[in-house]
Amino acid sequence: MLVGLKEKIQPDKWKIADHVVKLETSIIREILKISSQPGVISFAGGLPAPELFPLEILKDLSAQVIDKYNFMCCQYSLSMGVKELREWIADYTTKQGMPTEIDNILITCGSQQGIELLARVFIEPGDYILTENPTYVGALQAFNYYRARYATVEMDSDGMLIDQVEEKINKYKPKLIYTISNFQNPTGITMSEDRRVELVKIATKYNIPLIDDNPYGELRFAGKPVPELKSYGGDQVVTLKTFSKIVAPGFRIAWMNATKSINRQFEKVKQCTDLHTNAFSQYLLYEFVSQGFLEPHIEKIKADYRKKRELMLKVLEDTFPEGVSWTKPEGGLFLWLELPSHISAKELLPKAIELKVAYVYGQPFFPGGEGENTMRLNFSNATLEGIEQGIKRLARLLKENM
Amino acid sequence: MLVGLKEKIQPDKWKIADHVVKLETSIIREILKISSQPGVISFAGGLPAPELFPLEILKDLSAQVIDKYNFMCCQYSLSMGVKELREWIADYTTKQGMPTEIDNILITCGSQQGIELLARVFIEPGDYILTENPTYVGALQAFNYYRARYATVEMDSDGMLIDQVEEKINKYKPKLIYTISNFQNPTGITMSEDRRVELVKIATKYNIPLIDDNPYGELRFAGKPVPELKSYGGDQVVTLKTFSKIVAPGFRIAWMNATKSINRQFEKVKQCTDLHTNAFSQYLLYEFVSQGFLEPHIEKIKADYRKKRELMLKVLEDTFPEGVSWTKPEGGLFLWLELPSHISAKELLPKAIELKVAYVYGQPFFPGGEGENTMRLNFSNATLEGIEQGIKRLARLLKENM
Repeated sequence: MLVGLKEKIQPDKWKIADHVVKLETSIIREILKISSQPGVISFAGGLPAPELFPLEILKDLSAQVIDKYNFMCCQYSLSMGVKELREWIADYTTKQGMPTEIDNILITCGSQQGIELLARVFIEPGDYILTENPTYVGALQAFNYYRARYATVEMDSDGMLIDQVEEKINKYKPKLIYTISNFQNPTGITMSEDRRVELVKIATKYNIPLIDDNPYGELRFAGKPVPELKSYGGDQVVTLKTFSKIVAPGFRIAWMNATKSINRQFEKVKQCTDLHTNAFSQYLLYEFVSQGFLEPHIEKIKADYRKKRELMLKVLEDTFPEGVSWTKPEGGLFLWLELPSHISAKELLPKAIELKVAYVYGQPFFPGGEGENTMRLNFSNATLEGIEQGIKRLARLLKENM
Repeated sequence: MLVGLKEKIQPDKWKIADHVVKLETSIIREILKISSQPGVISFAGGLPAPELFPLEILKDLSAQVIDKYNFMCCQYSLSMGVKELREWIADYTTKQGMPTEIDNILITCGSQQGIELLARVFIEPGDYILTENPTYVGALQAFNYYRARYATVEMDSDGMLIDQVEEKINKYKPKLIYTISNFQNPTGITMSEDRRVELVKIATKYNIPLIDDNPYGELRFAGKPVPELKSYGGDQVVTLKTFSKIVAPGFRIAWMNATKSINRQFEKVKQCTDLHTNAFSQYLLYEFVSQGFLEPHIEKIKADYRKKRELMLKVLEDTFPEGVSWTKPEGGLFLWLELPSHISAKELLPKAIELKVAYVYGQPFFPGGEGENTMRLNFSNATLEGIEQGIKRLARLLKENM
């Protein structure tokens, strides 16, 4: 039935927007494809432990959602999100010491969409964003689409070196400050209280939106809790949080906490992009949290990840060669390794895959492309046995190549 | 704990990107908010009939999904979508006469995201898009963000006036041709076979991607079926389809059908925007379709909408004043009214709301802002009783104001 012009059809010659052509696919997602080969022990992704997903509870709640919300869980819904869930989140946040109302909360399809909406609302081609160096590669990918540039600030074990921030602001006039303040992806570093106070002061002085991407904050299993940036900064801070790491990522339910007037902008662009977030899953997560399942579940995750982190640190200590250093995060999913400066973690990866162990090399997390000798290790997704074996394999690999 | 600078926090002065400030919120979603007031009979939205949602089946299948897919339905998933669902869709499309492989299918968060990804990949500021006049307001909203301009083509009861298309292409060099070929939103018009052949020929001649936004194609309840544009145009056509109108919109599961090479671009930008679509809901819909629930459910919807459409047409015929004309769609969700040219459907709306009946006025569907005397009526969402009462109220309103 084709109209006989098939030979002339040339979709490969369709003109793609220039900045899309230049966009790189996420290196992490490419590595995930490789590392999901059978038998590979993967420290590559940022995947939660699958054995902890509360499947039986979710099964019960799915049925309850249909009985309780009936057609509402299947119908078109509001761009801001389901009212019950937004109310619960506002209340939860208020109880954590940050007074929040329902209109401060906008539900997104994962925090990735929150990052995307921020870029969409604030960034025009060539604008600068101030970030930690390194920073979350998925955020860079979202920002890159908008042709953002980066003013990067180095870190030590207390987070961003605040001394550098004001200088960078004066030089680059960034539109946003983007930080992952808790158990940072990729380094696992948490910003200290003093630095938080300083950063809020500076963001407020220059009136720059301070974005706190905080997916791991609830997952602290060592050290002393530090209040969220929003506790110090109030309306100056836009917070991104998610159920991906504390319940399950497959439902893609996360939220932004911002002022009402800024949320009007986010709502507007959210409408254009996908109308609204999955209604059924919003009701499902609302039932999960409102029936009290969240807190015990977080405790369960923390207990598990604590063990995994301790084991990983111990095997690293026991087996890794001199000249390699790593962070000792107090929570989250990742730790960060620095190899001797002449070693390329990227070049080592194929050899690691041969040994049936995978990681993400660190370079893509640096907006400037440095960090060849760094790698990120995830400790949440593998089993204890896998961690022991995988780290030993990496140790062997490094000893043979250093 | 706020750092004492609260008086200086000025998020209202944050610099929003210019083209976002200019963006208008969807008039339909605003009207939906008004028309959801209790007691209002609404012909405003594009909402499926809530009483038809297959709730009991979905309840059973939710439990099955958890048992069968276990942690997979909760974990991070692929940007292209869940393999099982993509395979089923490819097979379904092939059986409809359009040979399709799994890599032609990319799952999106509703067709709105499909439109968004198309704009993202193809449109740069100032680019033209060729559309029907009027066309889907949600597409205009998505395209407007990318600062698209419009080359519009008038319609008659057979769809786009093809004579105008080539002239417009020569004049405006559009990057995309965007059509809703079946039971168009807002007019309810379906493109004839001859016009389809002609449109494909022209799109192929100029090698312009031909976008067939086709959410209603399965919902024909009168007249003779017409093959999809892709049957004629093959790879020249990118098709958008969705489960929103044939199962339920709350799950936000839709798909794009395009060549593998173009899908690589869509996959890349989908990664940036939200990583992937809700995994649980993809498995849920896969179980729904693969267990054979789709076809009987579509029959049920068609039987219901057929009755509603017939009643609406009959009450219009019986009660509406001279000088008003309307389309008689053979499927879908909408019909389209033209009032005498001196009547503004926008100005009448507040009076309609007072009479407890709502519609969407037609003007926002016209890229050029004309069509003041037009309105769109949805016949799927109201009950038969509601249709009878609501149309009578509108008739009274028009008689009093003409």
